[in-house]
Amino acid sequence: MSPGRIVCFGEVLLRLSAPGAGRLLQSPQLDVCVGGAEANVAVSLARFGREAAVVSLLPDNALGRAARDELRRHGVDTSGVRFAPGRMGLYFLSPGAVLRPSEVTYDRAGSAFAVADPGAVDWETRLSGAAWLHLSGVTPAIGAGAAEAAVRAAREARRLGVKVSFDGNFRATMWAAWQGDAPAILRAIFECADVAFADERDIGLVLGGDYSRGSVEERRRRAAEAAFAAFPNLQRLAATVRTHHGVDRQDLSATLATREAWITTKAYPLGGIVDRIGAGDAFAAGVLHGLLGGESDRASLEFGLAAAVLKHSIPGDFNLVQEAEVRALVAGDGLDVKR
Amino acid sequence: MSPGRIVCFGEVLLRLSAPGAGRLLQSPQLDVCVGGAEANVAVSLARFGREAAVVSLLPDNALGRAARDELRRHGVDTSGVRFAPGRMGLYFLSPGAVLRPSEVTYDRAGSAFAVADPGAVDWETRLSGAAWLHLSGVTPAIGAGAAEAAVRAAREARRLGVKVSFDGNFRATMWAAWQGDAPAILRAIFECADVAFADERDIGLVLGGDYSRGSVEERRRRAAEAAFAAFPNLQRLAATVRTHHGVDRQDLSATLATREAWITTKAYPLGGIVDRIGAGDAFAAGVLHGLLGGESDRASLEFGLAAAVLKHSIPGDFNLVQEAEVRALVAGDGLDVKR
Amino acid sequence: MSPGRIVCFGEVLLRLSAPGAGRLLQSPQLDVCVGGAEANVAVSLARFGREAAVVSLLPDNALGRAARDELRRHGVDTSGVRFAPGRMGLYFLSPGAVLRPSEVTYDRAGSAFAVADPGAVDWETRLSGAAWLHLSGVTPAIGAGAAEAAVRAAREARRLGVKVSFDGNFRATMWAAWQGDAPAILRAIFECADVAFADERDIGLVLGGDYSRGSVEERRRRAAEAAFAAFPNLQRLAATVRTHHGVDRQDLSATLATREAWITTKAYPLGGIVDRIGAGDAFAAGVLHGLLGGESDRASLEFGLAAAVLKHSIPGDFNLVQEAEVRALVAGDGLDVKR
Amino acid sequence: MSPGRIVCFGEVLLRLSAPGAGRLLQSPQLDVCVGGAEANVAVSLARFGREAAVVSLLPDNALGRAARDELRRHGVDTSGVRFAPGRMGLYFLSPGAVLRPSEVTYDRAGSAFAVADPGAVDWETRLSGAAWLHLSGVTPAIGAGAAEAAVRAAREARRLGVKVSFDGNFRATMWAAWQGDAPAILRAIFECADVAFADERDIGLVLGGDYSRGSVEERRRRAAEAAFAAFPNLQRLAATVRTHHGVDRQDLSATLATREAWITTKAYPLGGIVDRIGAGDAFAAGVLHGLLGGESDRASLEFGLAAAVLKHSIPGDFNLVQEAEVRALVAGDGLDVKR
Amino acid sequence: MSPGRIVCFGEVLLRLSAPGAGRLLQSPQLDVCVGGAEANVAVSLARFGREAAVVSLLPDNALGRAARDELRRHGVDTSGVRFAPGRMGLYFLSPGAVLRPSEVTYDRAGSAFAVADPGAVDWETRLSGAAWLHLSGVTPAIGAGAAEAAVRAAREARRLGVKVSFDGNFRATMWAAWQGDAPAILRAIFECADVAFADERDIGLVLGGDYSRGSVEERRRRAAEAAFAAFPNLQRLAATVRTHHGVDRQDLSATLATREAWITTKAYPLGGIVDRIGAGDAFAAGVLHGLLGGESDRASLEFGLAAAVLKHSIPGDFNLVQEAEVRALVAGDGLDVKR
Amino acid sequence: MSPGRIVCFGEVLLRLSAPGAGRLLQSPQLDVCVGGAEANVAVSLARFGREAAVVSLLPDNALGRAARDELRRHGVDTSGVRFAPGRMGLYFLSPGAVLRPSEVTYDRAGSAFAVADPGAVDWETRLSGAAWLHLSGVTPAIGAGAAEAAVRAAREARRLGVKVSFDGNFRATMWAAWQGDAPAILRAIFECADVAFADERDIGLVLGGDYSRGSVEERRRRAAEAAFAAFPNLQRLAATVRTHHGVDRQDLSATLATREAWITTKAYPLGGIVDRIGAGDAFAAGVLHGLLGGESDRASLEFGLAAAVLKHSIPGDFNLVQEAEVRALVAGDGLDVKR
Repeated sequence: MSPGRIVCFGEVLLRLSAPGAGRLLQSPQLDVCVGGAEANVAVSLARFGREAAVVSLLPDNALGRAARDELRRHGVDTSGVRFAPGRMGLYFLSPGAVLRPSEVTYDRAGSAFAVADPGAVDWETRLSGAAWLHLSGVTPAIGAGAAEAAVRAAREARRLGVKVSFDGNFRATMWAAWQGDAPAILRAIFECADVAFADERDIGLVLGGDYSRGSVEERRRRAAEAAFAAFPNLQRLAATVRTHHGVDRQDLSATLATREAWITTKAYPLGGIVDRIGAGDAFAAGVLHGLLGGESDRASLEFGLAAAVLKHSIPGDFNLVQEAEVRALVAGDGLDVKR
Repeated sequence: MSPGRIVCFGEVLLRLSAPGAGRLLQSPQLDVCVGGAEANVAVSLARFGREAAVVSLLPDNALGRAARDELRRHGVDTSGVRFAPGRMGLYFLSPGAVLRPSEVTYDRAGSAFAVADPGAVDWETRLSGAAWLHLSGVTPAIGAGAAEAAVRAAREARRLGVKVSFDGNFRATMWAAWQGDAPAILRAIFECADVAFADERDIGLVLGGDYSRGSVEERRRRAAEAAFAAFPNLQRLAATVRTHHGVDRQDLSATLATREAWITTKAYPLGGIVDRIGAGDAFAAGVLHGLLGGESDRASLEFGLAAAVLKHSIPGDFNLVQEAEVRALVAGDGLDVKR
Repeated sequence: MSPGRIVCFGEVLLRLSAPGAGRLLQSPQLDVCVGGAEANVAVSLARFGREAAVVSLLPDNALGRAARDELRRHGVDTSGVRFAPGRMGLYFLSPGAVLRPSEVTYDRAGSAFAVADPGAVDWETRLSGAAWLHLSGVTPAIGAGAAEAAVRAAREARRLGVKVSFDGNFRATMWAAWQGDAPAILRAIFECADVAFADERDIGLVLGGDYSRGSVEERRRRAAEAAFAAFPNLQRLAATVRTHHGVDRQDLSATLATREAWITTKAYPLGGIVDRIGAGDAFAAGVLHGLLGGESDRASLEFGLAAAVLKHSIPGDFNLVQEAEVRALVAGDGLDVKR
Repeated sequence: MSPGRIVCFGEVLLRLSAPGAGRLLQSPQLDVCVGGAEANVAVSLARFGREAAVVSLLPDNALGRAARDELRRHGVDTSGVRFAPGRMGLYFLSPGAVLRPSEVTYDRAGSAFAVADPGAVDWETRLSGAAWLHLSGVTPAIGAGAAEAAVRAAREARRLGVKVSFDGNFRATMWAAWQGDAPAILRAIFECADVAFADERDIGLVLGGDYSRGSVEERRRRAAEAAFAAFPNLQRLAATVRTHHGVDRQDLSATLATREAWITTKAYPLGGIVDRIGAGDAFAAGVLHGLLGGESDRASLEFGLAAAVLKHSIPGDFNLVQEAEVRALVAGDGLDVKR
Repeated sequence: MSPGRIVCFGEVLLRLSAPGAGRLLQSPQLDVCVGGAEANVAVSLARFGREAAVVSLLPDNALGRAARDELRRHGVDTSGVRFAPGRMGLYFLSPGAVLRPSEVTYDRAGSAFAVADPGAVDWETRLSGAAWLHLSGVTPAIGAGAAEAAVRAAREARRLGVKVSFDGNFRATMWAAWQGDAPAILRAIFECADVAFADERDIGLVLGGDYSRGSVEERRRRAAEAAFAAFPNLQRLAATVRTHHGVDRQDLSATLATREAWITTKAYPLGGIVDRIGAGDAFAAGVLHGLLGGESDRASLEFGLAAAVLKHSIPGDFNLVQEAEVRALVAGDGLDVKR
Repeated sequence: MSPGRIVCFGEVLLRLSAPGAGRLLQSPQLDVCVGGAEANVAVSLARFGREAAVVSLLPDNALGRAARDELRRHGVDTSGVRFAPGRMGLYFLSPGAVLRPSEVTYDRAGSAFAVADPGAVDWETRLSGAAWLHLSGVTPAIGAGAAEAAVRAAREARRLGVKVSFDGNFRATMWAAWQGDAPAILRAIFECADVAFADERDIGLVLGGDYSRGSVEERRRRAAEAAFAAFPNLQRLAATVRTHHGVDRQDLSATLATREAWITTKAYPLGGIVDRIGAGDAFAAGVLHGLLGGESDRASLEFGLAAAVLKHSIPGDFNLVQEAEVRALVAGDGLDVKR
């Protein structure tokens, strides 16, 4: 089942969120889970039977060890996780409801990952035997060192013949905090990517154009054209389309562009949403799983979208589903109690 | 209020489910409740003021005693519950959400009920003073012994002049586990039934025909005709109609066929569903409560449907409502906070 | 930011509710929060930066002190809260779901507030420096003494040149319990009010007319005309319009009448409602906040409605939002996760 | 096993307590259980296999019904529980720890039981077939009506040839609240009692003497002599002896005086106490169970003491143990994990 | 740090226990953790940095997968865990308190492990590269097949030159359930063992002698002599000595016999015990960790005892401590808060 | 009751701790409370009826606001709390048990308080009307800026005629993290102090001597002599004496030295300790409350010790007791349930 190892590089975080529908610290408890864009992708892939590894740095304390253990629990290879000085990266989540959006407060300044030496990872070792390296735009947004490390990782992968997948994940407030040159840095990574998860706003940010007019399809096709022109290595550009009727009711579909084709899916109506965080990572992992398994672009996109849809039903960052559950949703197997 | 005693025969189970919206064992807690198709019916009837008894076997340990106590709590007569060797029957529930269906994992092999002697119950004693015996198709699906016990119970009731109500409740995986001849065994029980809760698929399974074409009404009327022809004792055939828009949003209506008439109801739109398990049992209990109280078929059906609707708002297997709440829903008393 | 102090007079209660979606005492826990119509208004205003005070009586025990502390926590001035003999006023809430309405069981007989001397408050001191006094129709419904105290408060405010805002909040069962003459007593308070929060049913109750025919606008405009005619001091009459699709799905809009103008808003679709209790108080506080800040009637109404909308997303009686969140909803800032 | 029915008359309460070791409302939850001195005795006896009934009045709302259901759950006959106007009797518990004692705040004014007509119970019906009536000193402490009802119950039992057991349970603050003449009223009940659970302070209060000098044995023997002299019907006087080393570490032994004999037990060292409330009721129930079963005074006392000891290990008012567990403690069966 | 792999063979179980200090199902929740004597040893060893593997069979459902994941979380190699038909082995725990002992109800009949083919494990593969095989007396107590599998495992290890450690863990009720010949079967495993964890009762059971007279030292030395005489491969015999002052207060020391020496330790006073389950497994793992690291018998025994002591402070079956914490206890580093 | 305002200057923290007796992140929840040495003192004093204020800096986000609100809840004046850039200071607590000590992991690097300008506080305003300034040794341990701010605060108070109390609270790992010159900086604050809470180790650290020989009394008297000699402003030196029998069982007494007298107390035996954190702050607050109220040194010391004793019974950093409870413990009012 595992034709190749996928290595995910990025910061592993603890998410601390208000239990139930309350506001942060309305009651004196916090629910905790482990997350982070790249860890989320690795956990999804490991649960789908892939050999997935996380390369990261964590603080050498009870929190860092617990985060490592949680990755291990889901079958992720953590031999590339090192323990280093610094604090644990955190984020606080006040879950939204009705017409009040969820709110994330990052607390990752000074983390072991953020303060690490950009050259700390021996990529020849880490990528040995790997088929893919997965990165996200969150990592370079952390700070100058992390940005350098991310670009270096992408280039090393390229040099070593390892394919690169990149999830744009633009986080404006994180870039603003250290005044990083987001377009230039993200461009450097896009240049290495074979597959990118990004929509027209991401492309506009990176390439400078305006893709905000016309239908979603028109906007995305134009953005894809520009991206394929700018980045010769890029072969596929995929993204979800999300429509909000309320915080707990949304529609989700997806698009995938190749240099030859344009694929769109039907929209799933999502009601009673449990947790929307990590849906993008679930999508990326699902598409990669399809591609790695030699499935068609359409089948990979539909698998990725169904994986993303299921993520909305599961609390926490990780998409704790079985491959068979994703296949059942793609197949339209029905919604009544399964006994 | 109690013109007659209703005796419900079947296995009492513990349900162990993931708390909140998490997956089974995502967090290290389980919510526990007592359930089982026939116990659910007995609890509903007792709460509506009926004299309801459960006849069952439970293991003589803390779990079996707790299950008995919970029935007692809701006013069910448990003098027919015996403690016997064997384990407690369990089922694990991973509650669904959004577009991920709920999943039940039965764990009832080797239970005190499953391994009991099919002739263990002294039905003359148990049915003394009873107006009705209620059975469900779950019991014969448990195994050969339970199937024999269920058929015997139905026949004894018939012999003793006690009316029989039977809820089809077909469980394919349970029958498959011991390769029981479901059609033959279920037919033997249907032959004794005065009232059956079953839809066109149940009838098709039992009688062998195909009732899958046409509108719901057409399918069900044809199935009812076949059932009335095959089972001379049968007087009423009722079932709900469920449409899924999502795991938390469905529509529910109901149909009831007699040898003379065909009754359908409006559909209730169910949103923000809390727990769908036990809705069928709530429906059966509601219809029986109406019939036992001498209400018309239509009124009984509408009461049963409203009871089933309310069940979707209550966690656990039992329909913890008051009769007045069901009447208020039938009467359309409004949805704002009652102070 | 605080052009004047707002004094809220009424009983502070503990709310005890079933956790999750269960029925009262289905599981052996209760969630507790502090509430009461006037306290809710004070907390909203304090959180919006206003100087808000509660004048009340609480029992001198752990419960009374905890209630006082909770007000203090949210920035309310509690120097006007006295500790007195009597018990703590409680209310029990069985939260509704799907098509089963929420149910409130009041347990406030014999409370320190209910048994207090109607003349116990020294209003000259309490209203010194105050711009507004806020009352609600719950207070006079508590009993003869509370009714006398409420009327006295309104008249004292009027005498001292302090503006009066009054929320009708008619509670039929409370009035019935002591057979109070609701129309007469409420009229006495309406006579003192500059702003009233009341709909056509409240006005019909107080003035005796029938305003139940025609569209919402027609009914309310006629009721407003009658109210303005009957109560020369009254300048504004505001209320929300609520449509129920289910317990967790409703629409909410609002109307405001002045002697010169009639203002209505768009309707917000509310899905996945968390807690509807206190939405009326959130609305009143929001409108008052706008008016106190010198905003237009329309802006005040829209702010009040948005505040009420957000309340539906927050468990408990208090509207634990920031002013900026209300402004963001008015501005239509979008529903996706804010990072 | 059931040579006779025991009827327990008194108020059934809800206990609301802070979860864990926190103070009341330190966190926004309360644990709830059902209790009340007489209900506690009835539950113990029912769990030991006795036919035990509670005669009481509860409010006709969700709280009253839940309290009745909880008694039923443990096998108590609740046919003598009537639903009547009034509120639910409550008590709030702030559990102690280390050197901070637990604190009970009663909230039972205006309860259905407190406001009931003293002559409301038809004792001929209620005591039909009963061997014993059990009362406690809490009931007459509730108020004048309850005191009259308690005395009447004791006298009716005597008249009908039903034996009376009485647990002194002196509650000074409750008597003070209505300035009841505790000595006179308690004397009237002691006069009817065959068995009393009371120590030298109780006897001193009722008979007016001072029994506070000398060893525990000396004090109690003198008190017993006085009680036997004053109350010709009294045959047995039993009580526990409690020594506090801390809130969670105490020693417990017991004494029983008859007109002929004086029995004392060894002291059990209690460490890590979970919940001390209800231990006196567990003791009374245990002694009664022994006496009803025809066991010797010594065996009955030792069973009662062991039952009381076990109560300290169980949260809530009820002593949720099996008879076999009490027997095992009496037999000294060891403390290691039982598998 | 890992001079050799340790393979632990046995059933992995889910423990379901009442939360807090309540009785089983007193409240409708269960705490869940993963356990089983051999899994507990493997987790301890993995956390101490050893390469530890579990060989077992689990059902192919959500429960079996969750159990496997939990082992993985703590760093155990689960490549030897196979998924097979059958149910998940469970045990229910009612935690004791004060003078009421904890109670375990096993529910492992029909489990995937219990119904497995005794020859299912390919030991040549599983023990390849292993230094030790660890077994416990629980496994052969499960049933005839499991007994055969355990004996076979021990003999294969012996044959392949892999050392065997064996924890007696006699479970009388489990052996009684299938009337297994415990002495004969356990003897067969003792014959293969290099290290055994067993006290004088275990040896008496296996060898038939009576070692119940004299001091603990006398009894154990005589038992050790007999064991060394009967089992020529046996080199070390270790066990803890436990004295109960109450369920939450006990003393713990340990003894170790070799063919040349007799070692005893000081006794640790344990107060406020959190969870005593798994302490024996923590002891075995600690002793093995010392021996595997080349430490002296005394140092290994003291490490094992300190590990067992710490287990009493941790809820669940697993001993979730760091090696440094065990070392600190051995070194007497003090009990005040570490900052 | 309030003869003067006490101003407490220091960092307010969130404590995140494992619920129950589990290890950090053993289960996916954290209990949260607000704490910090100086905030703890302010809360105690406010609850004793003193006018207490906290001067601090908190981040302008949901966490900072919640921390401020919690102080306000307990009656602390928070007008001196400013919101500033930076993160929220946190600490993680793994609560100990049996013989495993509790463990604190600080996570306060980069906090709003730590990165603040040392001259940010306008002390003339903040100390206007104040009788005392309270500081602790934690503040200068945070970093160079905080150290400068603490020294400045002490000197400003001295200059403005405000008395200074100082709690040594030496935190070696915090000083080590930035290699601060603890002796020199602490000396600068001791020089300003009228009352110091410090034991012989603190004095040894600050003054360089060795006070580790002899009895507690001898060691402390010598340390006090040295301190009074070195610090002419110092009038009183108080500290508790703690003996550990286990994590949940300790003895606590206290000593106070003045220039004329030496006072010691009896030792309280503490069993079943709930939470030992904040006991030192509770002691300091209790002693200050006595001194501020004009009580004798002995009475102040005994009040402080009893307050510290009670703190061990309460979860969280704050000593949530009433003054009357402290007085009752001093008076020896008994440990049985108070009703």
